[in-house]
Amino acid sequence: MNRTPQQADPHHPDVDWVFGLHGVRALLDTPDQVRRLLVAEGRRSREVEALVRAARDAGIRVERAPKRALDRQVQRAAQPSGGTSTDAGTVNHQGIAAERHAFAPASERELEMRWPSFEEPLVVVLDGIEDPRNLGACLRTAEAAGAAAVLLPRRGSAPLSSTAAKAASGAMERLFIVEVANLARRLQWLRDQGTWLTGGISDDAGVAHTEVDYRGACAIMVGGESRGLRRLTRERCDHLVRIPMAGATQSLNVSVALGVLLFEARRQRALPSGSG
Amino acid sequence: MNRTPQQADPHHPDVDWVFGLHGVRALLDTPDQVRRLLVAEGRRSREVEALVRAARDAGIRVERAPKRALDRQVQRAAQPSGGTSTDAGTVNHQGIAAERHAFAPASERELEMRWPSFEEPLVVVLDGIEDPRNLGACLRTAEAAGAAAVLLPRRGSAPLSSTAAKAASGAMERLFIVEVANLARRLQWLRDQGTWLTGGISDDAGVAHTEVDYRGACAIMVGGESRGLRRLTRERCDHLVRIPMAGATQSLNVSVALGVLLFEARRQRALPSGSG
Repeated sequence: MNRTPQQADPHHPDVDWVFGLHGVRALLDTPDQVRRLLVAEGRRSREVEALVRAARDAGIRVERAPKRALDRQVQRAAQPSGGTSTDAGTVNHQGIAAERHAFAPASERELEMRWPSFEEPLVVVLDGIEDPRNLGACLRTAEAAGAAAVLLPRRGSAPLSSTAAKAASGAMERLFIVEVANLARRLQWLRDQGTWLTGGISDDAGVAHTEVDYRGACAIMVGGESRGLRRLTRERCDHLVRIPMAGATQSLNVSVALGVLLFEARRQRALPSGSG
Repeated sequence: MNRTPQQADPHHPDVDWVFGLHGVRALLDTPDQVRRLLVAEGRRSREVEALVRAARDAGIRVERAPKRALDRQVQRAAQPSGGTSTDAGTVNHQGIAAERHAFAPASERELEMRWPSFEEPLVVVLDGIEDPRNLGACLRTAEAAGAAAVLLPRRGSAPLSSTAAKAASGAMERLFIVEVANLARRLQWLRDQGTWLTGGISDDAGVAHTEVDYRGACAIMVGGESRGLRRLTRERCDHLVRIPMAGATQSLNVSVALGVLLFEARRQRALPSGSG
């Protein structure tokens, strides 16, 4: 992958927010690094209006929020896990902030262009992982299992932040990660390309994960920590699978569940054809 | 399991340290909750001396540390992830602090007593997991896979803290967790009971994890995040296994690796005997 990683500031490794007119304007020069714009409610200056228009033109989501929410975001960004809590009071957000990806994902168009070059790809779909550390661990697992692509919905997913990048241990930069506007529609497209869709769930509707055939073009999907696969995602699946639990624990950590599914798929895909 | 969980203070869910003479003295009434005592270097008061003696009599590890280390621990305990950063300056540690388990592990004697009741147990050995969230995720995974017991070395492992408990999602309270003084010796004991020991590694000395037979009494071991299995642990193994990686990622998150190994074991153990 030759995508451009963010120029990480070694002193602020966890800052994934840019505040104020000047910073947001500069960031909009590379629009696919921008995840969303946050604009304070109330009357807007002409400068803020211009940036909101530019963001919308570039297809970036713009959200309105109380000024207090922006204040809080400034506070939070000034206290990364690294521990610098110096200039929280001095940053003036001027009513505008942008959340950026530590790493810019690929577009759906790039997925369509690259698809014909894949041979029986193993695709991973992360349907709304909320915690950046879990997201990073899922990416690390996906890369280790040889995923040809990872699909993330644009909304409802943790950002590809530097926290996620750290948990991914370098996998984020190496993977082909695609941000998807409408996941249900993109799953239908995958089916039209002959991909079998298998969704991991934790309720009784699933068969044991070892009972499904994962050979050929295949997508493995897991959902967010609290709600699992979304209804529309679930409805697109050819198979719903459940990892049989022996204890009282109802579900695994999402990156662990993904690992169990992916390496069962890998085990089967390595079997001589005709067996299994 | 009917072990006693710590009385969690809802306002300080992450505080696993007790500071000062009064608090440490009270905690020593339930010595198996105490993980270790930290005592400031230099001249000790008579009260501190008495507590050190009481701790030693109860078999608790006592460590000397510069006064600054205790100051730092007070600071850290006052800033849990919950965000209360109120009275960092007001806590006086009086030169003594105790780290407690959020949950008290079982003793090796309890393991020996309970062992005959196990039928072909699946045992998990966590050889020095350093990050409490990873430790918790490993416990959650172990419980879900039906581990009869989890063994942790007394030294070099993250504490069974409330952070670990949270990541374990209730598994910590349900598992039979045993703290082991000398892991290499305890592994030899496991072998003497007819248990096969399989260690997960990430270097080329391992065979593919799917090539080993995990049926019967079996222990699966993973090591710490940075150094993996320790040499003495590794030397006790009957099998060293490696999860074959397809990408450039060299290793999985330890809880993911444990999940892949345990559920491969579960898959095999569910096969009709004679097959596989």
